[in-house]
Parts: sequence; C-alpha cells; structure tokens
Amino acid sequence: MKLASVQIQGRTCFGAIVEGGFIDLSARFAGRCHSLADLLRQDLVHEARRLCAAVQPDHPLTHVEYLPLIPDSGARVFALGVAYKDHLEETGRASQESPSLFTKHRQSLVGHEQPILKPRVSDRFDFEGEIVLVIGKAGRHIPEAEAMSHVAGYSILMDGSVRDYQKHSVTAGKNFDRSSAFGPWMVTADAILDPGAMRLTTTLNGSLMQSTTFERLMWTPAAIVHYVSTFTELQPGDAISTGTPAGVGHRRTPPVFMKAGDRLEVAVSGIGVLANTVQDE
Amino acid sequence: MKLASVQIQGRTCFGAIVEGGFIDLSARFAGRCHSLADLLRQDLVHEARRLCAAVQPDHPLTHVEYLPLIPDSGARVFALGVAYKDHLEETGRASQESPSLFTKHRQSLVGHEQPILKPRVSDRFDFEGEIVLVIGKAGRHIPEAEAMSHVAGYSILMDGSVRDYQKHSVTAGKNFDRSSAFGPWMVTADAILDPGAMRLTTTLNGSLMQSTTFERLMWTPAAIVHYVSTFTELQPGDAISTGTPAGVGHRRTPPVFMKAGDRLEVAVSGIGVLANTVQDE
Repeated sequence: MKLASVQIQGRTCFGAIVEGGFIDLSARFAGRCHSLADLLRQDLVHEARRLCAAVQPDHPLTHVEYLPLIPDSGARVFALGVAYKDHLEETGRASQESPSLFTKHRQSLVGHEQPILKPRVSDRFDFEGEIVLVIGKAGRHIPEAEAMSHVAGYSILMDGSVRDYQKHSVTAGKNFDRSSAFGPWMVTADAILDPGAMRLTTTLNGSLMQSTTFERLMWTPAAIVHYVSTFTELQPGDAISTGTPAGVGHRRTPPVFMKAGDRLEVAVSGIGVLANTVQDE
Repeated sequence: MKLASVQIQGRTCFGAIVEGGFIDLSARFAGRCHSLADLLRQDLVHEARRLCAAVQPDHPLTHVEYLPLIPDSGARVFALGVAYKDHLEETGRASQESPSLFTKHRQSLVGHEQPILKPRVSDRFDFEGEIVLVIGKAGRHIPEAEAMSHVAGYSILMDGSVRDYQKHSVTAGKNFDRSSAFGPWMVTADAILDPGAMRLTTTLNGSLMQSTTFERLMWTPAAIVHYVSTFTELQPGDAISTGTPAGVGHRRTPPVFMKAGDRLEVAVSGIGVLANTVQDE
C-alpha cells in the first residue's frame, strides 16, 4: 500500500494512492486520526488496508498535490552522511564504525513535483538520491533483531546539499529552505519483499547520475534503526534517510551543480519516482 | 521582563516571572495566544509587559515547574559548535570563517530543575554552558545591521554532550533524550543593556568549571542571526545557542564527566541560573 500526505483543492489530508486514484483516509478516519504520522502512531495501517480494498477512490490522481511525506512539525528526519562504500571512496574519507547523522528540518523539504529552490547565496547546489526508512512504532534501545518491526515502510528523499555551506557545517549545507524533497509516498514494508534488491537511480535532465542497490549500504537498515534508538526514542512518523551512493555532482569531473530549470528524478524500484524541478530562490 | 513556559498543578502554561510570583499569561491571553512562541509571533510582548505592571501574581513561584523555554514542537534550537576562542584553542581545531551549527532536538531538552539523564551507553557525559538568543521576529537574509531587532531576548542552555557519540556525529552526541536543559526563562532584550558584559559561569557540584563574558564570542550575536538566516527563514520561538567557552570536562586533566547525583548550574548575569541534577537514564 502507498500512503501519502497531500493537498486536494487546498485542503491538507492523507490517504492511499491506488489504481485509478486517491482514497481520502483523513475523511474516512475523521475524528480518529489527523495525519499519516498519527495513523502510524495508532497502528491503523492494517485497518486502512482493509478499508482501501473495499472502496473506490475518492479523487482522481490529477487532483492530488503531494506534500512532504510527513509534514507534522513534531516528526524528525534523520539522515546519514557517508553510508555507501562507493560514496565513501569518492569523498576520500576514512571508513567509520558508526553511522554519521544529521538532521533535515521540515523547512528544507518539499513534496513531489513542488519546486526545489537553488539558494541565492550559492552556485554549488548538489543532489543526493536516498532511500528512507519510515518509523511506525516507538522504541528506545531497539535490538537489531527487532528493529525491522519498527519500520512501517520505505520512501525517497532528495537530499539537496549546498556544498560550500556544508563546509561550514552539515546542518547549514543540508537545511536551506525548500532545497530537498521527500516522497511522493511511502510503500508499506509488507510490499517490499527484498529491501536489499531495491535499485535507486538519480537522473538529472534525463542523464543517469547515481545508481545502486540498497544492499550496498554499509549498515543494514536494522543496524541503523538500532543505532539511532541508542540516543533517542524513535517515534512513529520519524524518518531515517539512509544516505547516498556515488555519483554526486561536486565529485564529478567537471563538477555538476543544479540550476533553475533542471529536472531531478530519484527512482527506487518498488517505491516509485520522486521528481522535482529546480527554481531560483 | 522574564517569560517562561511552565507547568502549574499539571497544566502547561506560559507567563511572566515577577517579584513574588508567576503571572499566568496563558489565562490572561486565553483564546488569543497558546504558547510563549505564539506570544512572540503575535508581537504581544509589549502588551504583556503593560499587563504585568498592573496586576498581582496569580501563583507563588513554589507552584511553578519549569519546562524547556520553548516546548513547541515546531520551534528549532540551533547551536553553535566552537564559538569562543579559548574553547577553540582547547579543542585544537583550526579557526573557522563561519559559525558551525548543529541542531538540538526538543527531545534532548528538559527545564530548569528537571533531572538531566546520563546515558546508559556512555560514561563520557559532559557539560557546556551557553547563552541563547531567542528569535522574536521572522526573517530571511536578515542584514547584520537589523539582526538584533529579530532577537526577543536571552536565555541559558546546558548543552549536554556525549563525547564518544559526538565522534560519530555531532547530531548523535548532542541529542541524547533529556541530556540537556533550556531555561529557566528568557529575559527580554530591553532588560539587557550591555549584552557583551553578560558573564557566564558553569559550576559542577559547586566548583567553577567555565567562566566567560559574552563579548568574547568569536561572532557578534548580530552576525550569528544574519548567518542562520542565509539558509532558513528564522521564526519567532526559534533559538540559537551561541556555543560554550573553555573549561569543558573532557578537555581537563584528568577529564571530568557527569554522573548521577551531580549538580550542574549555568549562571548568566542579568538572566539567572539554570540548575539541574543528573540522574542515570
């Protein structure tokens, strides 16, 4: 099942993307559940799936404007720094024992097909395609063996990276307002039979820039969830973006940076395509 | 004026700390304003000041339990890494052109006199006393000359730092749940005639560990506000913790780390004292 946070005729809601349209779960769970994060928190995914199997779509997909997957202000997006061996090699950094994390603020994220903004203060605006783990069940000190039961599903993040500001700090470089995208939806974990086989590709104006399978990640998804839970209680709606493979723009010869009009697509087999066009801030 | 977010008999509210008690501004602005961040957003500080001059306290201070200054889930706490020259020297790092930032998540923060938690997974739990700028007016690309008009006031942060996890990433080391404290209140900017003269001291079990004046910061508060606003629109209720001076525990010989029962106090002249006792997680 594909779950998304969207706007329909200016109204913010959440629901399921199905063959032929959108099922408005906000309306169908009215009074019980006010967001996708809340649906996860209340463990209503199974009920939503049963409901979706029995009804017709409420809206055609042409009426759907996608928001960042989890727009709730209380939810966090953690992101991994160097997490694929080929990207580690292109950065020239030493290997790490533990994941290196940073935070994407809500303000940095837009939805599928919303414009991403090239900052006014930099011409070094780079792309990073990533696969996201969406947390469905709260937990602290989660053992690796139980970690995947805390993952509700998978999504896609385009981690827009402003390379000159990233030298000041990862927080600055990764948090320019509306510089990144998250979505279009999450695919529930039951629908991804072999997560390691998911293929991620990033294309810029149709040219292939990044390609990997998820199994080439330096840590297993379970190890990543376990690690984050050693310092904070993960909550339903929190997300962990698992880092990017080789092929980023600033490591290319010559370097490639994004500019107004560019079209960026991050595709993950089994999930879908997160597509955005670049505008000047 | 001192403004705080508190609980009184289990009810979350905000108000003013005055001679002899607490004035409940949530009750007096009921229906108009639901939090301290909202008071700032609506530019009601002047009205609150007039009101406080005319009324008696609603509660004795003994009924007040302090929360983190801005508990709203949408507000951000940015923090500076190495920002005092003496701390730069003790870390052995090269000087930096721009501030180095990280994020403190809401989950990492407790209020004044709430216990801070020494993580189960580390014995390298360190203190950092810091002065905080509280943003009162939204802005992006704020010129330095106008930056101080966006600062509503000053507060105190104890940036609890788990040094072994900080080697993995600053995000992990600085975001253990309930490892840091923020408060007890903010003092509005009009009450701090000479911000540079504010003296910050950190004491651990009564022993002086850190001491500086605010003017020794490597960037002016205005330059810091300007810098953060280059990548994101600052919002009322956002906060920027300005970094810590020399004297942190892990740079001492022998190193000093916090353990259960320790009493940590960060005092800033003109603001007050943020005091917490350490408990085991």
